Amino acid sequence: MSLDYALFGIGGAVLALLYAVVLFGFVRRQDPGTSKMVEIANAVRQGADAFLNREYRVIAPFAVVIVILIYVFIDIPLGTHGATAIGFAIGAALSAIAGYIGMAVTVRTSSRTAQAAKNGLGSALNLAFRGGGVMGMAVVGFGLLGVSAFFIAFEKTITATPAVVAGLGFGASLIAMFMRVSGGIYTKAADVGADIVGKTEAGIPEDDPRNPAVIADNVGDNVGDCAGMGADVYESFVVTAIAAIILAALIGVPANLAAVTGSHQLLELPLLLGFAGIVGSILGGLYIRKSIKKDPLGALNIALVITAVIAIIIDFVFINSLFGGSSLGYYLLASAVVGIIVVIVIERVADYFTSYKYPPVRTIAEASQTSAATNFLAGYTVGLQSTAPSAVVLVIAILASYYLGYVGSGSNALMGVYSTAIATMSMLSLTGVVMSIDAFGPITDNANGIVEMAGLEENVRDVTDELDAVGNTTKATTKAFAVMSAALAAISIFEAFQNEVNKEIALHDLYSKYGLQPGGALTFVLTDPLVIVGLFIGGLLPFFFSSFLIGAVQRAAFKMVNEVRRQFKEIPGIMEGTAKPDYAKAVDISTQAALKELAAPALLAVLTPLIVGFILGPLALGGLLIGSVVSGVFLAFMMTNGGAAWDNAKKYIETGQYGGKKSPAHTAAVMGDTVGDPFKDTAGPAINSLIKVLNTISIVFVSAIVILALLA
Amino acid sequence: MSLDYALFGIGGAVLALLYAVVLFGFVRRQDPGTSKMVEIANAVRQGADAFLNREYRVIAPFAVVIVILIYVFIDIPLGTHGATAIGFAIGAALSAIAGYIGMAVTVRTSSRTAQAAKNGLGSALNLAFRGGGVMGMAVVGFGLLGVSAFFIAFEKTITATPAVVAGLGFGASLIAMFMRVSGGIYTKAADVGADIVGKTEAGIPEDDPRNPAVIADNVGDNVGDCAGMGADVYESFVVTAIAAIILAALIGVPANLAAVTGSHQLLELPLLLGFAGIVGSILGGLYIRKSIKKDPLGALNIALVITAVIAIIIDFVFINSLFGGSSLGYYLLASAVVGIIVVIVIERVADYFTSYKYPPVRTIAEASQTSAATNFLAGYTVGLQSTAPSAVVLVIAILASYYLGYVGSGSNALMGVYSTAIATMSMLSLTGVVMSIDAFGPITDNANGIVEMAGLEENVRDVTDELDAVGNTTKATTKAFAVMSAALAAISIFEAFQNEVNKEIALHDLYSKYGLQPGGALTFVLTDPLVIVGLFIGGLLPFFFSSFLIGAVQRAAFKMVNEVRRQFKEIPGIMEGTAKPDYAKAVDISTQAALKELAAPALLAVLTPLIVGFILGPLALGGLLIGSVVSGVFLAFMMTNGGAAWDNAKKYIETGQYGGKKSPAHTAAVMGDTVGDPFKDTAGPAINSLIKVLNTISIVFVSAIVILALLA
Repeated sequence: MSLDYALFGIGGAVLALLYAVVLFGFVRRQDPGTSKMVEIANAVRQGADAFLNREYRVIAPFAVVIVILIYVFIDIPLGTHGATAIGFAIGAALSAIAGYIGMAVTVRTSSRTAQAAKNGLGSALNLAFRGGGVMGMAVVGFGLLGVSAFFIAFEKTITATPAVVAGLGFGASLIAMFMRVSGGIYTKAADVGADIVGKTEAGIPEDDPRNPAVIADNVGDNVGDCAGMGADVYESFVVTAIAAIILAALIGVPANLAAVTGSHQLLELPLLLGFAGIVGSILGGLYIRKSIKKDPLGALNIALVITAVIAIIIDFVFINSLFGGSSLGYYLLASAVVGIIVVIVIERVADYFTSYKYPPVRTIAEASQTSAATNFLAGYTVGLQSTAPSAVVLVIAILASYYLGYVGSGSNALMGVYSTAIATMSMLSLTGVVMSIDAFGPITDNANGIVEMAGLEENVRDVTDELDAVGNTTKATTKAFAVMSAALAAISIFEAFQNEVNKEIALHDLYSKYGLQPGGALTFVLTDPLVIVGLFIGGLLPFFFSSFLIGAVQRAAFKMVNEVRRQFKEIPGIMEGTAKPDYAKAVDISTQAALKELAAPALLAVLTPLIVGFILGPLALGGLLIGSVVSGVFLAFMMTNGGAAWDNAKKYIETGQYGGKKSPAHTAAVMGDTVGDPFKDTAGPAINSLIKVLNTISIVFVSAIVILALLA
Repeated sequence: MSLDYALFGIGGAVLALLYAVVLFGFVRRQDPGTSKMVEIANAVRQGADAFLNREYRVIAPFAVVIVILIYVFIDIPLGTHGATAIGFAIGAALSAIAGYIGMAVTVRTSSRTAQAAKNGLGSALNLAFRGGGVMGMAVVGFGLLGVSAFFIAFEKTITATPAVVAGLGFGASLIAMFMRVSGGIYTKAADVGADIVGKTEAGIPEDDPRNPAVIADNVGDNVGDCAGMGADVYESFVVTAIAAIILAALIGVPANLAAVTGSHQLLELPLLLGFAGIVGSILGGLYIRKSIKKDPLGALNIALVITAVIAIIIDFVFINSLFGGSSLGYYLLASAVVGIIVVIVIERVADYFTSYKYPPVRTIAEASQTSAATNFLAGYTVGLQSTAPSAVVLVIAILASYYLGYVGSGSNALMGVYSTAIATMSMLSLTGVVMSIDAFGPITDNANGIVEMAGLEENVRDVTDELDAVGNTTKATTKAFAVMSAALAAISIFEAFQNEVNKEIALHDLYSKYGLQPGGALTFVLTDPLVIVGLFIGGLLPFFFSSFLIGAVQRAAFKMVNEVRRQFKEIPGIMEGTAKPDYAKAVDISTQAALKELAAPALLAVLTPLIVGFILGPLALGGLLIGSVVSGVFLAFMMTNGGAAWDNAKKYIETGQYGGKKSPAHTAAVMGDTVGDPFKDTAGPAINSLIKVLNTISIVFVSAIVILALLA
């Protein structure tokens, strides 16, 4: 591993982080609004700060224990100089920081966006987009920085034992999962509780300051949508990068590249793609300006396409120079283009199923006329339907990227999988602009809250409402992006897993234990009962994992509803606005639930692969990895798209359809939105983290599992 | 294939069918009740008859086309003398007959059960159980008859080309799927529509004759729960039997059996198990008597355990004689015992998650206090939770049954899979008693309707209500039984599929087309992108398929609600009971929906495996088969258990909890029940048929697929 390799990564990371600082400076220079707005924003910020601090204190001892376990049971036996444990620590720390920045930027941007909305849609859009850009650039910057720094530190260890890289991914994904789960529970407990009593029983609007759960709801948007999402996309980036790098290290120099000068093309390419995406994101983002007057979603799409085109051009220049005209380079370029097309297409699919401009959301709104039950069924149907085009995109992406690498390398199967990793890395290289597009959703959602609580004019609310509806769609888009990249990354990681398994078998001469001829290799065939059993256990995990999250939200929301009902009944003057509700009680319910309910799903995700691996062996564990993706992607698509569709069906009715606000159809749609909330913001996105935790922990522990497996 | 083999089957079939006639005679001798009850029962019977006739006329041309296609493209090229086409026709015809009998018996039993309820719980339980027994015995009888007759007719063809047997399974499963889908849509369109307006808007009880959808609802129970279920369990039996038989034919005589006299032990064993189960069911069923005064579910469980013990004893006697003391026989006996234990355990699991005696259903009832949304989230959570113990049972069953066959045969992998098929066959041998336990659910549900419509006394309703709640749980039990057997059968069928694929490759010397060395074999490895892509397409199918069914119910229920609302508004005197509602309009809405909405999911199930097979080839198709099970079983468990839990949460509140009937909690619970209805009675059980259609159609077309695949 040469230094120029890591320098590309460091260079890209520095560029991204500098631009994040520039954007953050821009955000801070904007008018934060009236003192009342600042006061509300500060209250939300302090609440979010307090929660994240408390959460990090809960997570930290757990992370320290894992670092020690990894060091003792993995690094010492492997002689890897603590690389895996240090990688885990770096990955975990940067994940926590990425999450913190996500939260810190949005709480500062939202009051300013509310203020900017007074000057019209363009101003608010521009500011929210730049605020999201800080998170996007920070995420991609920290991602590249972590991977590159790790390489500089452990160059030789990685060459000998590629699996050590997985420690980095495991740290990133474990913390991201914690933040997704606890943030998701926090935010939806508050949101669901606030909506059920506020909107349907008391008949007061969303974010009304008379609602005791309103501060908890707004804190929740920050710790859930922003901190959780920042950590989540950061881990996607890291996990994909390490998948590509492990495969590159396994492949070495492909035969038809040997003639070309240098031998690190495959290792360098993923980081170059990241570099290209950063430049593309910076330039593409410039398209969003204050002067945009209408169709914010259209403008965001144009920014995305500009970014994509620029990234492809830079990719072409890099590949042309790196591969010295070898045809393999162009095949991999085509694969990178496949990844970028996937981003654009999956964005259209999510848009179709979640925007109220199209039939799916409208059928939910229509079904709301005949009760909450038909609304539920219609929304669930839309979620289920959305899995089909998503699957088609996924299947085409896998086949196209695989065959490009396979054919381009003269029938090297491992190069086929590497090429899939390149397509995934190319997808994630657009993270900067994708996060900018995404993050204005929670930012405007929060701005909306400030507008309502500070009692700003109706026309300001119209602006933030319009952006909020667009944000629901772009949030669904990013989730689809994250799920799709997780599925593609999982395929690459499975290939790496299989290679590591056989390397360990050879290293320790365990052929007879695994029923192999000397020199043979374990293959994961569908006729093997251990593989089948692994597939079933893996297929189960997203369902069972989701049961904890949905159940946690339901339990916490139940308490929240009863608390809000109690305050309305026992504190006189709340509804008249003469008495203040006890916001702290609601914050406390969300906090307790988020921290208490974290343990069970976290243990499920961490212990299941270890138990399956140590008892049933690597064949079953391999099946588990694939099984979790096979059921997980569809459950995740169903829940994230369905949830967003319910939300926008409610918003569609609020535009005056089927009787508008406070009609029976609206009440039914609020119920549907309430059900969709934990689907789209708690369970759905957490599945994505689950899949990555399963993958990375399996690679980290592969050596111990191969040696110690009981049935094998 | 010797004649004694088929004679065992014919003998078992005759015994089962004779006993069905005996039971039917018993049912017919019972008092059908007052003239008003008879009148209502006749109206429902005529409606159900009319619908099934109409449905069969829609299905028949489709089935004829498939028969011709199979004959031309499969039987002629293979030189199999029309065996596959004839098998399909037999399977389809017997499936339709099994469905018809299911319906015909229940419509005749329900008014008699209502009448018997006047004499207390024991009388009603006894009669409903015997009525269900007619269906159970008919289903198992026709199953054995079809398989055995087919063997007598095509003995030599089957020996040469085992895949022809799959035609029988394809016919059975395709018709069962049609009946599950159309019956499921019919019944839930009526049920959901009736409940939303009747219970929550007009405040009239279930089955109130003033509700215009009430006749459609009762017809639906018969064409959905009874006809659909009869066809469904019949196909489970047939598909499992043929899976075991194909594997037996592939194996021939295992090495450690060669010394024993005779060589058809493996072929004979599945039918002997069926025989033993029939005898066990007849004897075990005798435990249910009029004298039972309380705990009907406990009594049914005892009947099940008695049946299981008797079946195991007979299995032991048969195996002891058949395998002449070879230890392999005892390993296979142990595997049969595993299958029977699975039935008992899975029954307990479904009971725990769906009966209101246990915490899961009670949490849903509790959550109903804070709105339909929290009720919905709680029910969804229970459905998701229930997947975990179901998966554990499935995994243990696979591993235990496989290793018993593998170890018992001296490490023959195919014998491992055969042993799994034996465990599955052993499960399904209990069909007689399982169906009896199940079918009293719809029978008492219908009896309930007659009690209400005929205005019988409150204490009669209490009896039928109690049995109805037990029926909700036993229906969930049978669905779990069907899903579990489908998953296990799919594993056996996949093994057969893989063998057939490689036989065809060898036969037509297609090694180079599939990138194999001459004499090599195609293996389904998880690192192959075609297998992975197949797994994703398969994983998608249950989700996408369900979207059509849930969507169909929602659309039809929407129409039904508007029609019922219209009648309440436009026909004066309905609510006072002075004017009759227009029942026919509601029947018409359900009928139209059931027949129209059948096409899309049916085509999805039939065309997807063919398209994937012909374009992507057998590797992707194999992945599809496993992928559909990996996601399908969990989606099915989630929906069937969740749906039953919602239903019983509502019933729990109706016992007076949380405010009882007409409280806000009850309204929320009715909404949850309404959502659960198409989960548990339309989409959930249909997934089971979907999985089997995919499996059987793939084996039927395996030769054409291997030869014609484009990418391979």
